[in-house]
Amino acid sequence: MRQDHLISAAHLSREDIEAVLDRAAEIDDDTAAFRQRHAGKVLGLCFFEPSTRTRMSFDTAMKRLGGQTVDMGPVESSSVKKGETLADTVRVVEGYADALVLRHPSEGAATMAAEFVDVPLVNAGDGAGQHPSQTLLDLYTIRENAGLDDLTIGIMGDLKYGRTVHSLAEALTNFDASQHFISPESLRLPRNVRYDLHASGAQVKEHTELDEVLPELDVLYVTRIQRERFPDENEYRKVAGQYQIDAETLKAASDDLTVMHPLPRVDEISPDIDDTDHATYFEQAHNGIPVRMALLDILLSQADD
Amino acid sequence: MRQDHLISAAHLSREDIEAVLDRAAEIDDDTAAFRQRHAGKVLGLCFFEPSTRTRMSFDTAMKRLGGQTVDMGPVESSSVKKGETLADTVRVVEGYADALVLRHPSEGAATMAAEFVDVPLVNAGDGAGQHPSQTLLDLYTIRENAGLDDLTIGIMGDLKYGRTVHSLAEALTNFDASQHFISPESLRLPRNVRYDLHASGAQVKEHTELDEVLPELDVLYVTRIQRERFPDENEYRKVAGQYQIDAETLKAASDDLTVMHPLPRVDEISPDIDDTDHATYFEQAHNGIPVRMALLDILLSQADD
Amino acid sequence: MRQDHLISAAHLSREDIEAVLDRAAEIDDDTAAFRQRHAGKVLGLCFFEPSTRTRMSFDTAMKRLGGQTVDMGPVESSSVKKGETLADTVRVVEGYADALVLRHPSEGAATMAAEFVDVPLVNAGDGAGQHPSQTLLDLYTIRENAGLDDLTIGIMGDLKYGRTVHSLAEALTNFDASQHFISPESLRLPRNVRYDLHASGAQVKEHTELDEVLPELDVLYVTRIQRERFPDENEYRKVAGQYQIDAETLKAASDDLTVMHPLPRVDEISPDIDDTDHATYFEQAHNGIPVRMALLDILLSQADD
Repeated sequence: MRQDHLISAAHLSREDIEAVLDRAAEIDDDTAAFRQRHAGKVLGLCFFEPSTRTRMSFDTAMKRLGGQTVDMGPVESSSVKKGETLADTVRVVEGYADALVLRHPSEGAATMAAEFVDVPLVNAGDGAGQHPSQTLLDLYTIRENAGLDDLTIGIMGDLKYGRTVHSLAEALTNFDASQHFISPESLRLPRNVRYDLHASGAQVKEHTELDEVLPELDVLYVTRIQRERFPDENEYRKVAGQYQIDAETLKAASDDLTVMHPLPRVDEISPDIDDTDHATYFEQAHNGIPVRMALLDILLSQADD
Repeated sequence: MRQDHLISAAHLSREDIEAVLDRAAEIDDDTAAFRQRHAGKVLGLCFFEPSTRTRMSFDTAMKRLGGQTVDMGPVESSSVKKGETLADTVRVVEGYADALVLRHPSEGAATMAAEFVDVPLVNAGDGAGQHPSQTLLDLYTIRENAGLDDLTIGIMGDLKYGRTVHSLAEALTNFDASQHFISPESLRLPRNVRYDLHASGAQVKEHTELDEVLPELDVLYVTRIQRERFPDENEYRKVAGQYQIDAETLKAASDDLTVMHPLPRVDEISPDIDDTDHATYFEQAHNGIPVRMALLDILLSQADD
Repeated sequence: MRQDHLISAAHLSREDIEAVLDRAAEIDDDTAAFRQRHAGKVLGLCFFEPSTRTRMSFDTAMKRLGGQTVDMGPVESSSVKKGETLADTVRVVEGYADALVLRHPSEGAATMAAEFVDVPLVNAGDGAGQHPSQTLLDLYTIRENAGLDDLTIGIMGDLKYGRTVHSLAEALTNFDASQHFISPESLRLPRNVRYDLHASGAQVKEHTELDEVLPELDVLYVTRIQRERFPDENEYRKVAGQYQIDAETLKAASDDLTVMHPLPRVDEISPDIDDTDHATYFEQAHNGIPVRMALLDILLSQADD
């Protein structure tokens, strides 16, 4: 990659993305070959807000490369509570580790932190900002299941607040995908994201009904609609119900439709889809390992040079 | 073992138990030989309720086999809080790990979870249900100190609520032990456990006084009587005091008596016993390592085949 | 070292200290040579009160030696909550680990715990008591930057409550340093520490103003003055402000002045010092790794013999 850190998917060129996905595919083919690749190295995990999935996934990825991790632990019991700045914290932890993974509740935290450290830093989520390793594993899953060329993808649910969705949509502009956005009116893509997509020449359409577009999709990416976005419980129920899918819904879809979800799900995807060939969300979660292994491998190898 | 998972001690035949204990003895004899046995493998620790002892013991066991662990962390900061089902959680974590250890507050959770995963799953406690690796380390400790043949064992304390005790009692029916149960009337073995023991032809006697049976015991297994089982503090004190032992108590016992306790203890066993040859409870806790190493070694090796 | 455990810096002779610092320097020169030194060994981390910095630093150090760690986790979810004594806890955990690191809120806890275990135990802080590995990394940082011979050091800030300071001051009596203590009247060194320093023949002077002594210092060791030591917010502000330094302050200092701080800092040291050659506090924090590696290496190697 051209950069030493991974802060935003928006910084990744098509070549960068393909370098990570190709390495992930190599790892998937022959994990054993990477088992001692970074033996003796240590990855620092700095999570300033709770995370199970992402933290475990980076932790596992580093260990599958033969490395070790050290975890800052919950912020309540950390030096942060004594008034330490983020800049000081990362400068200390950098002395322990060969690379850092940072999650922080404030947008822009990773950009700022990266200015203070010399080891590679991966942004694992900064508030409403970026979460680029999620985007990479989404792209990997799409490439493995439907291909990134001539792709027709539907992205459904909460398109207003979901950083996962914004980041994926922008990354897909590198690949000439047809993107369909399906959501209630109140949870449409934010204006600035729509603007950026149009500016980059992406083929974008917006819908309020899934059935308008379902039959032509290669991939349906579902996200959760959060109750707390609605002032009223009845309103929530009415809206949310329209964006839930089950085996019956998918009868109108192509046999090859790939259904994805960043997980955890609540009731957006009925369990009766789990055993169908459409269900790709667990595979998607599992792809976090080879993709994060690939990312760490590339950043750590670059830092060695 | 005949099964891929370890859910309940009740599923273990005498042959299964002996296979684990024999492997544990091999490990105790030559730990170094196992030091790289599962290098490159990862054990997922999913503790849905707090545990120090059991979690540390599995963590250590995996590392002593050359493997690594990844920990889900406290449930308060996990995806479970967002409404994820246990089935979804274990299906995600299975993608990170070569085997899973699960503790959960609901009885039956491990049985259910095992239906959703392909990697070996070990039940590390499911509510009032089973905790089979504790039973295996208890059996190992008995075998090493008193032998499992022609054993006369006393099990004392809270026999009503203690899952450790029920599981051990049932496992001992594989070995023709004489079992004496010593407890206050209100904390007797539950009817269903007594029924199962009788049905399996076990030699079982119940007592309210330790001195009725102490001289003939090879092993005395003490458990804690919890204050919260009694409506009244005075009642608790009166009862609990009768089931506490000290060096004076043990004057009536055989010189070879082995005293066990699953720990932590509060005041059931006086510290003046700690330096006597009777005290076997710390050794028992330490046996968690070779026994859990043996268990993981067997399950991981089976899964490789 | 002459002892099996490390409980207090006061137990360390000049020879002991130099043995650790020399080993740390070896490690700094050629970390790779130590990368598998303690492969297969496990360090038990028992933190009875929260710690980020010290815990991560020991965790990293053990892993940089090829070893593994197991962590007791937060005390709220441990057996301690069930009423287990410290003696019982360490006797159980000793069975899992080749060495233990203990932090505990009660002064004297480490001394007591060491009586119950056979594996090496390192005191990582016992209340207002000792934190000897901090002292060793402070000494290492001084030796690398200013030398321990003919040293003139100023120690500034909260000298009354800071255990770090007391321990460092006492350790420096092994090296004929000139020690200047700079603090408000209300936060002077405690009488007993002054007494011990004088009794050991140390050259000690006390000041209330930094500028009295700044020009002659080789090292300035700054500590935080905590708001909660003062009954009144205004009083705190007035006092604390006098013991904060910035680039302007340091114009009166030698070009070679080494500025240290145990971190975290709040506003005792202005960020405008960070980019000067004086700033040595991040290097000091990073020195925790080679120094703790050296300490663990020596204790684990002794235990092998």
